[in-house]
Amino acid sequence: MNRQQLVEQIREKQSFLCVGLDTDLKKIPQHLLKEEDPLFAFNKAIIDATAPYCVSYKPNLAFYEAFGVKGLMAFEKTVKYLKQNYPHHFIIADAKRGDIGNTSAMYARTFFEEYDVDSLTVAPYMGEDSVTPFLGYEGKWVILLALTSNKGSHDFQLTEDAQSERLFEKVLRVSSQWATDEQLMYVVGATQGSLFQDIRRLAPTHFLLVPGVGAQGGSLQEVCKYGMTKDCGLLVNSSRGIIYASADKDFAEVAGQKARELQQEMAIELEKAGI
Amino acid sequence: MNRQQLVEQIREKQSFLCVGLDTDLKKIPQHLLKEEDPLFAFNKAIIDATAPYCVSYKPNLAFYEAFGVKGLMAFEKTVKYLKQNYPHHFIIADAKRGDIGNTSAMYARTFFEEYDVDSLTVAPYMGEDSVTPFLGYEGKWVILLALTSNKGSHDFQLTEDAQSERLFEKVLRVSSQWATDEQLMYVVGATQGSLFQDIRRLAPTHFLLVPGVGAQGGSLQEVCKYGMTKDCGLLVNSSRGIIYASADKDFAEVAGQKARELQQEMAIELEKAGI
Repeated sequence: MNRQQLVEQIREKQSFLCVGLDTDLKKIPQHLLKEEDPLFAFNKAIIDATAPYCVSYKPNLAFYEAFGVKGLMAFEKTVKYLKQNYPHHFIIADAKRGDIGNTSAMYARTFFEEYDVDSLTVAPYMGEDSVTPFLGYEGKWVILLALTSNKGSHDFQLTEDAQSERLFEKVLRVSSQWATDEQLMYVVGATQGSLFQDIRRLAPTHFLLVPGVGAQGGSLQEVCKYGMTKDCGLLVNSSRGIIYASADKDFAEVAGQKARELQQEMAIELEKAGI
Repeated sequence: MNRQQLVEQIREKQSFLCVGLDTDLKKIPQHLLKEEDPLFAFNKAIIDATAPYCVSYKPNLAFYEAFGVKGLMAFEKTVKYLKQNYPHHFIIADAKRGDIGNTSAMYARTFFEEYDVDSLTVAPYMGEDSVTPFLGYEGKWVILLALTSNKGSHDFQLTEDAQSERLFEKVLRVSSQWATDEQLMYVVGATQGSLFQDIRRLAPTHFLLVPGVGAQGGSLQEVCKYGMTKDCGLLVNSSRGIIYASADKDFAEVAGQKARELQQEMAIELEKAGI
């Protein structure tokens, strides 16, 4: 999916919500455990209930890998289900990969050719040749970690160099030379508040994938205040706050309600910005 | 496997060789493609031929994930084969994972409980709470990226902060407070030459996993000169230089020879150091 198509979806649905599919057998409603593939059954119900209110889905690979071959099959089925039934939703494989060139090339082939997702999260620590193998695919995106939502983001990402440039700023500045804003997005945690201003100074037009609203405590309004651009430029993710809002038989319905609530808050922000 | 057991293996075999199982369907001998599981058939032959000369195996997850469910099954079978037949070899899952706490906890469960490997490579960018979930397993190790072997290692890892501390040095200094040298190793590329001295200043006793000898151009002698400790403290990896040394029917035999050559060079270095 290219940038224009993504922006069209955001305008049409008045939403920039991404639903995180962090699907955990220990947390899904018990009655689903009778299903042949409980992870997929859960995802399918969540997707059907939330699709009208979001523009993107983000399955987190860790949760599927934890269940070995079965988990991976559930991931594959989820991606196929999305592509067949909701082809206008932007699919993010949240895998935080990144390795030496020939290995990154293998990961790129896996995610962009085999699974055919729209984008992949990538870690920047290993530098240019660990990221560029992901950039050779038309309509596919790298979403590079810049400033993450967790407490540990302070350990290294905020380290200032001799010129007072912080590591996340260097990642933004240097990586923006590797690709355009049509191929590259950044992960910036919703918990980072006013640091979004610093992000926007270096990445004024890039889309940002923003986790950390909801369970992790970030504020949607603050993210929009400092991070929104004239074509939105934001995909705000919520995982646990939507998909585990109810552990009962009504889990999908409640997830749909939660997604709708977030969509309505987002519509207000989009209206303010004239989008 | 604990540190003492690993050091015993090194002394006994006079080797600190790790064989990297970067198994690629496009590179393995053509006659294996007739096998039911060509990836596993290749690994099994390589393992049987090289086991006397190495103390460790490092399957790189990217290569298995690239073949979807089948690839993952080949990875599982390889780990099981090693554990059953070569229980004294240290198994490294080279996956370079790292995510927010609850996600890292899922990865830890996958690799340390399901697959039951000895260690996992982890990326440091997201900081403490992305790494510590891997540290709660007795006899299991985190191998944290410090200074990698690729050209892109210069992009961020060598960035100096205001106190002239480079990022890889900060990663070593800060992370060594999270765990002891009985749980934590570091990845340092063989291509980094005399920078090993700087590594040893901050991590005098930690084991280092050293990729980059062979195809990537690093020198074993230089690594040993600057990096070896009194109980060796090194696992030197070679992947392509061993496993793809021949593409013919004699591939396993030639891999065994290449591993033996490296083992003999290592024995000289160990003898010099009195180990």
